[in-house]
Amino acid sequence: MLRITIFLLLVFCTSCSISRVEKKEWDVDNMLIRIAALTIDSAYIDEYINLLQEEAAASVAVEPGVICIYPMFVKENPNQIRLLEIYLNQEAYEAHLKTPHFLKYKNSTLHMVESLELIDMESIDKRSMQKIFRKL
Amino acid sequence: MLRITIFLLLVFCTSCSISRVEKKEWDVDNMLIRIAALTIDSAYIDEYINLLQEEAAASVAVEPGVICIYPMFVKENPNQIRLLEIYLNQEAYEAHLKTPHFLKYKNSTLHMVESLELIDMESIDKRSMQKIFRKL
Repeated sequence: MLRITIFLLLVFCTSCSISRVEKKEWDVDNMLIRIAALTIDSAYIDEYINLLQEEAAASVAVEPGVICIYPMFVKENPNQIRLLEIYLNQEAYEAHLKTPHFLKYKNSTLHMVESLELIDMESIDKRSMQKIFRKL
Repeated sequence: MLRITIFLLLVFCTSCSISRVEKKEWDVDNMLIRIAALTIDSAYIDEYINLLQEEAAASVAVEPGVICIYPMFVKENPNQIRLLEIYLNQEAYEAHLKTPHFLKYKNSTLHMVESLELIDMESIDKRSMQKIFRKL
């Protein structure tokens, strides 16, 4: 019994180390990184923010390929929305576009969005991304 | 011996849970969140990017109050730099401004920066920040 317990303890510790190693297997060169800049009709801003919050939270929680969807608004101009979006790769992004939470958000907010700009970005410090983003 | 082993296993598991709870002690309402938007003189862009990369990496690595300094450039216009910056609170930001790595970056790049805009942001999904940013 003692041997079995020690064996289980060792297996547990080893699996912890393995999961740490697996987390480091990522390829930033294939990631999709962008800033989305939106202007929202002021009449809908509260409703829009609720829908965006729900969509972003669900994406980060349930999609392994969504490294970051971080929504913000400009303090001095709350109908100016900015999102930092990081997807593991093109496939993760395309899968995201088909999720029920994204489709609900997209269809519910179409009439609220006055402008939408998607700005493709390049990461300057690829190594440090692991120290910033939890899923890397 | 078996009882001791099981006891040690329980202590180990409990300490894991405690460290998880401690990580949740954060207050997003006091955080400083902003997007920095810079235009860099094209003649200096490579040199500037090296200096920024070094500064951002050092800040994230050694400053506990720097949750995120994530530098990017616009793919179609690489002299357009954007940073997402998140500091734990005002004190963490002020401490950051006094670090040797920030002062080196600031003084070395002053003549390279054509424009600088600091845009104060408000986080839309405060709860999900814990799932995105490693230090939360």
